[in-house]
Amino acid sequence: MKLVDIYKNLRQDLRVVERELSRSVRSNHTELDRSAAHLLEAGGKRIRPVFTLLAGQFGDYDMDRLQKVAVPLEIIHMASLVHDDVIDNSETRRGRTTVKAEWDNRVAMYTGDFLFARALSIASQLDDPRVHQVLSRSIREMCRGEIEQIREFYNPDQDLICYLRRIKRKTALLMAVSCQVGAMVASAEEAVVRRLRLYGYYVGMAFQITDDVLDLTGDEKELGKPAGSDLRQGNVTLPVIYLLHHGSQDDVRRIRDYLAARGEGVGIADVLERVRRSDGIAYANAVSRRYLDKALQCLEGLPPGEARHSLHIIAQFIGKRSY
Amino acid sequence: MKLVDIYKNLRQDLRVVERELSRSVRSNHTELDRSAAHLLEAGGKRIRPVFTLLAGQFGDYDMDRLQKVAVPLEIIHMASLVHDDVIDNSETRRGRTTVKAEWDNRVAMYTGDFLFARALSIASQLDDPRVHQVLSRSIREMCRGEIEQIREFYNPDQDLICYLRRIKRKTALLMAVSCQVGAMVASAEEAVVRRLRLYGYYVGMAFQITDDVLDLTGDEKELGKPAGSDLRQGNVTLPVIYLLHHGSQDDVRRIRDYLAARGEGVGIADVLERVRRSDGIAYANAVSRRYLDKALQCLEGLPPGEARHSLHIIAQFIGKRSY
Repeated sequence: MKLVDIYKNLRQDLRVVERELSRSVRSNHTELDRSAAHLLEAGGKRIRPVFTLLAGQFGDYDMDRLQKVAVPLEIIHMASLVHDDVIDNSETRRGRTTVKAEWDNRVAMYTGDFLFARALSIASQLDDPRVHQVLSRSIREMCRGEIEQIREFYNPDQDLICYLRRIKRKTALLMAVSCQVGAMVASAEEAVVRRLRLYGYYVGMAFQITDDVLDLTGDEKELGKPAGSDLRQGNVTLPVIYLLHHGSQDDVRRIRDYLAARGEGVGIADVLERVRRSDGIAYANAVSRRYLDKALQCLEGLPPGEARHSLHIIAQFIGKRSY
Repeated sequence: MKLVDIYKNLRQDLRVVERELSRSVRSNHTELDRSAAHLLEAGGKRIRPVFTLLAGQFGDYDMDRLQKVAVPLEIIHMASLVHDDVIDNSETRRGRTTVKAEWDNRVAMYTGDFLFARALSIASQLDDPRVHQVLSRSIREMCRGEIEQIREFYNPDQDLICYLRRIKRKTALLMAVSCQVGAMVASAEEAVVRRLRLYGYYVGMAFQITDDVLDLTGDEKELGKPAGSDLRQGNVTLPVIYLLHHGSQDDVRRIRDYLAARGEGVGIADVLERVRRSDGIAYANAVSRRYLDKALQCLEGLPPGEARHSLHIIAQFIGKRSY
């Protein structure tokens, strides 16, 4: 079985998810509908709904109930992307924000709010308060992760723990929750729910670390944005943190100078080149690999079958992905 | 009975609300806690929780359940204030946004998100899915109202209907919901719930219209901000809409010029003076008055008693307020 087969197997139910997604973000409101349609077309792998549906197969699979969490999870993800883009846009205009850009930003902010509220209102059709608790908590944690990230922008003195906690909140938690609530809604056994949540958490950590590595090593064409865009906006990721702690005196000095200047005056090209050539990349990949191994171990404790096999393939794919 | 007596009567339960509010916005997260504390200190009249508690008196008053909607309602209001301030700050810097201001904006945005999610997670402790539906829908409608307002900035061709729909979404709905869910949670009769919701809606409409009038007629000291701040940012409110439709040719031309120039080049002082001297103010006050009368009529259909009397006084107070 390959990744494409997983999507093929879930085709029918993913179609339901797509239909409900486009129905849910419709608002009879031109501005809102336009941005929502744009987001939907942008597509994406719908990895969170996939996790939910696969996790649901470990219990009483009921698509009617599962869609009421699969759809909100994707909408929460979409809302977080919308808010991620807010204000960032204006940075490309060299710090100068036009009135038009400010309005666009405001509209984007309220569109994100609208989507968050929509997500939670769909989930509230289920009579299981645990689900609402878990979903709204995951939004809260994502916000904390984002705020932590902003607070640590350009900070050279952050360590591994700080980074891991941040990406857990920013990314891993929502993947963990996608697995967890799928199993929960299908009334899977408590131990199975816990194990699936842990699987999602490990996979999410590996996913984000790989993402952060690719942002440094990929090229503009692959990434669809300039390489090193994290570092450009001050986001210090794992390979850079490694180098700050274990690099040569010269490397450490150059990175510190770059961060201290907050990207102004000191060129990023040299810093990027140093990070790419360093052991930081291999180190980050190894950390990601370790999380994936833990994810695979988690699966071993689950009942064998197609669902487990699918989750195995997804974890392996994340380990191999190069874009 | 006076307004102050209403607060005195509810003192004990409002203290519970305050305690839960400050507990709820705490996050063990310095940035978040700082802005939340700031919001809490700013205080405010807690009018939404007051509505909820008073509405609860029309059924089986149970503070344990009522606080699980009163607190979220105030948090939703706080979150909307936080998002209202986002980006606006930067406008005071003449369209130029510093990196620092952008970060502050981002933190404020995620703080608002955090608060919205927190509000819904508190409400989800209740096992009544209607409550979650109503609350998340009210957030969605508020967002739509905000987006409509942005879309209509500087638009001279908007009419009364457009304005009323916007302030309904922006303000009146959350007040309506505050009354509605209070009664709902207390298992009041269906007809009573509907009537209280309607009361809240009418009072909310009157409240916002008065607010918009005061923004034009008040002075900087009373308002704590420059008079005409709505018009300064392009928000065309009822008195101005009236003048655009019923003013002298000269008035209409000057306002249209101001709006067409989007506040640049054409002084606001002359426009403000024209609006203040016009019948637009009296007209808007009359519309507000009509909503208040409807609110008072609503109350007549409710069982008499202290709660009804309190709601009566609040409606009257809103009619008389001058700040």
